[in-house]
Amino acid sequence: MELDKLRYNWIDVEDDIRLYASSLGICSRRIPMDDRRSMCCLPVTVFPSPMERSTFQLAINLQPSINEMIHKISINHQFLEQSLLKLPDEFVAKLFHIYQTVSKQGYAASHQLGIFRSDYMIDQHSNLKQVEVNTISTGFCALTQQVTQLHRYTLKHYQGLSDDQINGHIATNDSLDRVAQSLIDAHRIYSGTDQHSAILFVVQEQEANVMDQKMIEWKMKSLSPDIRIYRRSFRDLDHGIISLGPNQQLLLTTIDKTQVEISVVYFRAAYSSSCFGYENSWKLRLLLEQSRAIKCPSIQLQLAGVKQFQTLLSDRAIFDRFCCSSSPHSDKLFNTYTKFWNISQSARDLVIKNPSEFVLKSNQEGGGNNVFGEQIIDKLDRILSNNENDAYFLMQFIRQKAIKSLLIFKQPPPSSATTSVACQPPPYNQIDSELGIYGSVLVETNGHHIVWNQNAGHLLRSKLSGEKEAGVFSGAGILDTPFLI
Amino acid sequence: MELDKLRYNWIDVEDDIRLYASSLGICSRRIPMDDRRSMCCLPVTVFPSPMERSTFQLAINLQPSINEMIHKISINHQFLEQSLLKLPDEFVAKLFHIYQTVSKQGYAASHQLGIFRSDYMIDQHSNLKQVEVNTISTGFCALTQQVTQLHRYTLKHYQGLSDDQINGHIATNDSLDRVAQSLIDAHRIYSGTDQHSAILFVVQEQEANVMDQKMIEWKMKSLSPDIRIYRRSFRDLDHGIISLGPNQQLLLTTIDKTQVEISVVYFRAAYSSSCFGYENSWKLRLLLEQSRAIKCPSIQLQLAGVKQFQTLLSDRAIFDRFCCSSSPHSDKLFNTYTKFWNISQSARDLVIKNPSEFVLKSNQEGGGNNVFGEQIIDKLDRILSNNENDAYFLMQFIRQKAIKSLLIFKQPPPSSATTSVACQPPPYNQIDSELGIYGSVLVETNGHHIVWNQNAGHLLRSKLSGEKEAGVFSGAGILDTPFLI
Repeated sequence: MELDKLRYNWIDVEDDIRLYASSLGICSRRIPMDDRRSMCCLPVTVFPSPMERSTFQLAINLQPSINEMIHKISINHQFLEQSLLKLPDEFVAKLFHIYQTVSKQGYAASHQLGIFRSDYMIDQHSNLKQVEVNTISTGFCALTQQVTQLHRYTLKHYQGLSDDQINGHIATNDSLDRVAQSLIDAHRIYSGTDQHSAILFVVQEQEANVMDQKMIEWKMKSLSPDIRIYRRSFRDLDHGIISLGPNQQLLLTTIDKTQVEISVVYFRAAYSSSCFGYENSWKLRLLLEQSRAIKCPSIQLQLAGVKQFQTLLSDRAIFDRFCCSSSPHSDKLFNTYTKFWNISQSARDLVIKNPSEFVLKSNQEGGGNNVFGEQIIDKLDRILSNNENDAYFLMQFIRQKAIKSLLIFKQPPPSSATTSVACQPPPYNQIDSELGIYGSVLVETNGHHIVWNQNAGHLLRSKLSGEKEAGVFSGAGILDTPFLI
Repeated sequence: MELDKLRYNWIDVEDDIRLYASSLGICSRRIPMDDRRSMCCLPVTVFPSPMERSTFQLAINLQPSINEMIHKISINHQFLEQSLLKLPDEFVAKLFHIYQTVSKQGYAASHQLGIFRSDYMIDQHSNLKQVEVNTISTGFCALTQQVTQLHRYTLKHYQGLSDDQINGHIATNDSLDRVAQSLIDAHRIYSGTDQHSAILFVVQEQEANVMDQKMIEWKMKSLSPDIRIYRRSFRDLDHGIISLGPNQQLLLTTIDKTQVEISVVYFRAAYSSSCFGYENSWKLRLLLEQSRAIKCPSIQLQLAGVKQFQTLLSDRAIFDRFCCSSSPHSDKLFNTYTKFWNISQSARDLVIKNPSEFVLKSNQEGGGNNVFGEQIIDKLDRILSNNENDAYFLMQFIRQKAIKSLLIFKQPPPSSATTSVACQPPPYNQIDSELGIYGSVLVETNGHHIVWNQNAGHLLRSKLSGEKEAGVFSGAGILDTPFLI
């Protein structure tokens, strides 16, 4: 989608969109975070990116099956153990140790909440290809709803589309509402009519993407003003600030020295080893898990999101154990898996023949850990000689159809920006996009009854073709939305 | 209104309010403006400030009479000339020259739009005391509506007030909606059913308070998507970019070299000599005034806001010439005037006796030009010896009842802000407040029929007691709202 460059002065347009995005909260703290009062607009595409409606709808349709598969993996102790314990991954091993400890002691929590996001690329033949399923701290659920609003504005005012036309091409995105409502509903299931318990957001000590999290908090407060919400890092929770009561209640000592019972722990940290820098983080993670509070996610739901399961589920026999074959979507879901190889000498031989056909992926979450092309060989050599402790696996590189797009990066426009001299848009960029579908699932811990299993909105992140990572903070990711055609 | 410091950690509260304010657009560009992508939250009070309902309501009730008085002054050529030409004020003289030129040529515009703001202090006996009436570029009409929303949030979540209680104490503030609608309505009157004309915002080359202006633009676009709006500085309009057509149409040459007819010129610049730094600014201001476009404000409405009129209208005989004595509000309005003195040796003698009872005010708009206390004598000596060219007048200092308030300044919290160590609120400050009431008036230029004369919301700005200026950008002003009691 192009801007009518004869009609619009680019500097005016960029300033307008950047400020409009800021007024919608599509911004983050400035990095480095020495000045906490300053916010800057996150990178966004000027217009939404075209996507086939059927492809988008398929991804939406598949999500409940994915939610259910994650749940089924999470309750299969033997499969978790077999799959994860052999991984040379210290982070997974530590998570697994918490899981073992808690499952031996017996789960105190009656329920567990998952807010997942399944990420896809769309290949050159318009096939959905699953990149990963995130089961912890799935970000941008608030901001993506705002980007949908931003793109409705740009379509209306820079493309002249009517509301009806926009409604026909832009899917409703209620990710913020759904995630906030899921947390509220989990809180209600824990607390019943008792109004005294509170929700705990476990957050990083330094968090640039704070607006995405605060918007969930504000939405929850607007929907249920009685719910109290606390944001605490592991460091904040140490020294007895968080503790267990006689019935495994999770108790947070607040500023007035009273203890508040926590109903739901929502993790926006603890997704990778980098989140455990504080010395007692792991002890605190265990303590949280031992409590009666509903964890979003529980340790077993987090483990079920380890990327190793992608490689395992691409084996149809294993896939069929976890995806009900009677599901109308099972074949379609299986087709979203791409080819995987475990690390071996023969895998190395494959890569040498055609390095650009592969990507070496790490189990670590948070982006920035993938290796591409020629660099895979060096990395494989270090892994094969046991000089690397993290778990990796090899995946077929997904070749996408590049789309032409006009981008607003973080960089500022020239400081002499108020000028009427005709200022042309920058060159259009070729971008690749990654579609994320959110799902929400609440399950009973014992008996494994699924209380709800639902969709929860979507995310589109784009990046310059050739860039390796689509993470908005870790890499070159740009917030986008799908324009359905 | 106090924060329950036993219940809330101040660092959490400050961060929450600062981010919530940012998400509502209560922010400005960072100064210096080297980095146009960064925005920072403007200073706000945590809670609204108490105000007697009857005092607030009186200010609201007076506004239509004030709108009408400004109009009556603007059409009284003899009074304008007598009052302004003797002023030793180069800025006013230049405005007057434009007015004379245009009135001799005959006004091309059929209508003129005023968006005014009458500012008041409330003295220790709860009396409204008018500080000034602004008739050009009355700022914060968008942001004050957002601060009302922010304070509804803080009252609900940090004071536990119900929606009903909040509705009982917080007046509806629709200043953004009203100002946007006034500009749209003026555009419709100019253009009728012709959809091709556009609105021109005349803005400063460097503008920190851009969000307040962009919000008006976005509100207008959402109400009337067909209206095109251009933001241009004087520099942007030079070199033939703006010109007059054969019927005095105001024509803006756009980026594609076509000419767009301008329906309404909305000045968010041109309010003080500092806005005329670009060499051809005055020529361009004249050209705009000569056009058929509806100016907001016209040169005569701008002139009617010169502060000199405050001193003149505090004479009851003059007041009665401009305020219909049959108006139910005329006595009440007259009582809002405080005592004024023109600059003279006898005024100097008065000040020497009790300097703290006076303030020396300049005609210049934009804040930061007042002189207080002992410093008045030095300034008066320079004025009396004719070494100063700007117009000043002496006003009785209005002593206010200080209110205790909790403030969020621009300064960042400590960088080690994520800590659970009990962090107390900063000391409460004593503040003074200034209430602004917006009004909107559209008049026919010939015949002087008033098409509409209405209220358009309100603004409350506070400052630390003892601070001299309440300007949010020029001084120590803090955005606030009234809590009616």
